Amino acid sequence: MPEYKAPLRDMQFILNDVFHVEKLWQTLTTTQEVTPDLADAILEEGAKICENELLPLNRSGDEEGCQFDNGVVTTPKGFKAAYQTYVENGWQGLGGDTEYGGQGMPKMLTAMFEEMLYSANCSFTLYPALTSGACLAVHAHASEELKTTYLPKMYEGVWAGAMCLTEPHCGTDLGLIRTKAIPAEEGGYKITGTKIFITGGEQDLSENIIHLVLAKLPDAPAGTRGISLFLVPKIKVNDDGSLGDGNGVSCGSIEHKMGIKASSTCVMNFDDAHGYLIGEPHKGLAAMFTMMNYERLSIGLQGIGLGEISYQNALAYAKERIQGRAATGAQQKDKAADSILVHPDVRRMLLTQKAYNEGARCFAAYTAMQLDVAKGHPDEKERAKAHALVSLLTPVAKAYFTDRGFDVCVLGQQVLGGHGFIREWGQEQYVRDARIAQIYEGTNGIQALDLMGRKVVSNHGELFHQFYEEVSVFADSQDFDPLPSMKHLLKEHLELLKDCTEKVIGKSKEDPNIVGSASCDYLNLFGLTAYTYMWARMISVVEPETEFGQSKIKTAEFFLNKILPEAKAYASKVLAGADSLMAISEEEF
Amino acid sequence: MPEYKAPLRDMQFILNDVFHVEKLWQTLTTTQEVTPDLADAILEEGAKICENELLPLNRSGDEEGCQFDNGVVTTPKGFKAAYQTYVENGWQGLGGDTEYGGQGMPKMLTAMFEEMLYSANCSFTLYPALTSGACLAVHAHASEELKTTYLPKMYEGVWAGAMCLTEPHCGTDLGLIRTKAIPAEEGGYKITGTKIFITGGEQDLSENIIHLVLAKLPDAPAGTRGISLFLVPKIKVNDDGSLGDGNGVSCGSIEHKMGIKASSTCVMNFDDAHGYLIGEPHKGLAAMFTMMNYERLSIGLQGIGLGEISYQNALAYAKERIQGRAATGAQQKDKAADSILVHPDVRRMLLTQKAYNEGARCFAAYTAMQLDVAKGHPDEKERAKAHALVSLLTPVAKAYFTDRGFDVCVLGQQVLGGHGFIREWGQEQYVRDARIAQIYEGTNGIQALDLMGRKVVSNHGELFHQFYEEVSVFADSQDFDPLPSMKHLLKEHLELLKDCTEKVIGKSKEDPNIVGSASCDYLNLFGLTAYTYMWARMISVVEPETEFGQSKIKTAEFFLNKILPEAKAYASKVLAGADSLMAISEEEF
Repeated sequence: MPEYKAPLRDMQFILNDVFHVEKLWQTLTTTQEVTPDLADAILEEGAKICENELLPLNRSGDEEGCQFDNGVVTTPKGFKAAYQTYVENGWQGLGGDTEYGGQGMPKMLTAMFEEMLYSANCSFTLYPALTSGACLAVHAHASEELKTTYLPKMYEGVWAGAMCLTEPHCGTDLGLIRTKAIPAEEGGYKITGTKIFITGGEQDLSENIIHLVLAKLPDAPAGTRGISLFLVPKIKVNDDGSLGDGNGVSCGSIEHKMGIKASSTCVMNFDDAHGYLIGEPHKGLAAMFTMMNYERLSIGLQGIGLGEISYQNALAYAKERIQGRAATGAQQKDKAADSILVHPDVRRMLLTQKAYNEGARCFAAYTAMQLDVAKGHPDEKERAKAHALVSLLTPVAKAYFTDRGFDVCVLGQQVLGGHGFIREWGQEQYVRDARIAQIYEGTNGIQALDLMGRKVVSNHGELFHQFYEEVSVFADSQDFDPLPSMKHLLKEHLELLKDCTEKVIGKSKEDPNIVGSASCDYLNLFGLTAYTYMWARMISVVEPETEFGQSKIKTAEFFLNKILPEAKAYASKVLAGADSLMAISEEEF
Repeated sequence: MPEYKAPLRDMQFILNDVFHVEKLWQTLTTTQEVTPDLADAILEEGAKICENELLPLNRSGDEEGCQFDNGVVTTPKGFKAAYQTYVENGWQGLGGDTEYGGQGMPKMLTAMFEEMLYSANCSFTLYPALTSGACLAVHAHASEELKTTYLPKMYEGVWAGAMCLTEPHCGTDLGLIRTKAIPAEEGGYKITGTKIFITGGEQDLSENIIHLVLAKLPDAPAGTRGISLFLVPKIKVNDDGSLGDGNGVSCGSIEHKMGIKASSTCVMNFDDAHGYLIGEPHKGLAAMFTMMNYERLSIGLQGIGLGEISYQNALAYAKERIQGRAATGAQQKDKAADSILVHPDVRRMLLTQKAYNEGARCFAAYTAMQLDVAKGHPDEKERAKAHALVSLLTPVAKAYFTDRGFDVCVLGQQVLGGHGFIREWGQEQYVRDARIAQIYEGTNGIQALDLMGRKVVSNHGELFHQFYEEVSVFADSQDFDPLPSMKHLLKEHLELLKDCTEKVIGKSKEDPNIVGSASCDYLNLFGLTAYTYMWARMISVVEPETEFGQSKIKTAEFFLNKILPEAKAYASKVLAGADSLMAISEEEF
């Protein structure tokens, strides 16, 4: 069975040594009770439930999948009990507002726990992750009455959440949705319509499911400015908070998918279902967007978590499996062959996994730190700066974590040779489970457009320059003693990114297709540069005399020599213009 | 249901316009009866069986998979009937020696038919593909008696073939195999041992299965020089060619895999099974290698075929699906949104698929042409030259076709957004089916080592320089009128590849790990350069005034602007040396 040990040492290094959380958490008004010791204890306990309760259900869950029978969804064996354990131990409310029964832990910490969850059991994790997302939207925009009624039960996990956006004819372009909301005589609204691809839309884990549904009011303007957000419980909630009657919410079917098979992906039918408006009429998309940065980071963590467990198992296999001899002569002379870890190309695959995983973990913590600062810093300017970074970096995090996470899982499968293709070895499931993270929560193509268009071009690079300044000042302030080439390479690639940024902004005025033509390659270039910055941050605080420090230094060196050269290729493609994409006609395809 | 139309127009262009097969086939002693008209007729008939008989069984075969019960393997519904149609129409013997009942068609043609087969039904195709591989080994090395007894039935497809190499403890390192062969009293040998990952090792399609088994004779030297090759029928064959008794060959189980689920992957047990030596004692690996170039090209075609059908369905979806508006303003004003084909990033994905598929198809034909010339040219020098190119290019073809084929399938899935992840849409199956081609028939890491070590470094670049000369002369001889930047870029990248080749050869003397450290990136650089050469060959003969010609020119331009920039990144990595791979210790991983 696949092995997994939560990478606690690396997480502690990132929190304490790289980002100095003790001081940070003291500064923020929202986290003053959080100490590094408490963080350690939470991560250690979190590791236990992941390793002991959730990991053992991962493959059986994949093999069994969710079952659908006449509107009822049954999750795989063991999921209900594991969910009970999960919520009874308070994990659902870990990041929730203390005012409504949450535990108020910072995103930096909950993000690390999420990474572990995705490593151990990606399908399972999606149920609580969607609840967390729904809680964020309710918390940010719902009335006090709705918050008091729903949030405590959702933080407890007794009720779960689901996000109902997509319809059969529209995924990315939500302006096209057809689901209707009409005011109800008894107050509230009647919601009617069909939603697809609803993760956890129906399941047998929680007592109720709170759907957040995008729909159009009768007087709604056309397009995305006419979308409102509604809270629609599966089972109506009485005034005293007890469960009442059913609510015209039903599951029509579940999808048969490539991966995340133990996560139910539902067609949801709303037939005059009673719901409550969240936020203002026609401002539903904006309400969704406030929690989107958290959700997109979470889906990014799916890529990191799956990459991590794939790495751990590929490494274990490479140490055990003997084939061939080292190029420099036999290393394990008592055996019929050497372990495959002697072969440079096997090391290339493992080091690529390691370099991406650790760079990503650090960047996830960095992005989560901006979310925490944006929420809890006493200085408004600091909050605004952090918010700007969050806006800029979230699409990079979501897309780059999941694109590279998928690549990392493919490499981890490759290390096992033929065994990587066989289900019982587990590695192929990570590939299948990682694949969806590049697609949902906004495809990675949409993330790239968001980055290049909304976050870079539309503000003439203002957010970018804030990031540029920070990295530039940091690069100048350090010697990177254990790896002196870092300074030059970080600065060189930061300038390359700046140059591409400015050129695209300049060209975009003449040609509206420039943004979409450059976006994907620009995101990749940005991601590589951001990881370089993270490796630089790690190298600047590492202790070279330790095994852990040596591991970091050698992995960083590999990253600089064998991964970072891709940056210039991305830059060439960013600057290649739109013509070679747009010239071909529909018939010539 | 997924659509597929065999790309006959492109195939005819490659055969007739790019490689002038009419003249070539007249020249070769082996193909003088083959005309372009005959080739057209074969490809058209081949397309029909792929589109009409095999494609409809692809998804049902994946869903149902092979079943195993007490040694008996049952293929999915419809497979047996389709196999009957396939063999009754003579397709199994298409490339076989006419002396034993084959049809003697050139590899250039059978390779194109193979591509279609892999597009239509990858799992199905593996059964006849393995028979073809076994036939090649029997034809090249078996005694006349064995050839007369076995080849006609195998070309008819009444008997199928299987290749039994891998054992549980050894995949790549065949020197470690434990299967034994001892001389039998009645003549021949008794074979005992267990083989794993045997494609088509057991099935219900053919009357008999002819296993080619690697085993060690009692006096065998250790390692790869002590391996012999044996022909072991599942059911013994009487002197009159009729089937006799069973033969101690049994299937222990079948694997549960990520993909190619309708292809049986068997554990095969040989218990004193009666077999016949093929070729000389202890020379089994060499006998295997003579057919390996054909087999590796065939597996490469799996990558192309799957990439092609993924492209066709992604394109069809992109034309139909409406989401958002073109950046330059609404294109389909009568609709609620434009088709997603207006978006540059969707075009990027589709053009990447198209550029790789068509470059690969041309390179497959080019490599197949070398196989045909090596076999049938009247001039020994020409045969030797072609054989040298085959040796050099086969690992590139196998690995680059399948690595890029996998990428192409992932892109084709991405174009469909959420639907790409849902099984009924078909795109996710191509990703799963393509994945194995990077692993089996020698992992792509092994292909890269074969290229860099055996085919480049060990002969000091002699084979490479032959390729270099050919491309260099071609580049200088053409103007590439419709796309003049081609000349400069082809020459520049050829020189880049030459420079990398020479530097690695130079460095390899000091450091034995250089070869393995550079190999994967070198193969990618080689593949990109080879595709550039193919696009140059196509552009040099294209008719710019036709829609087909414009399609080629614009796709080539995309390739040069948006794919080829990766070459320099690979070159940097090739030259990065071995230290950053080898420095890290086992404990530091």
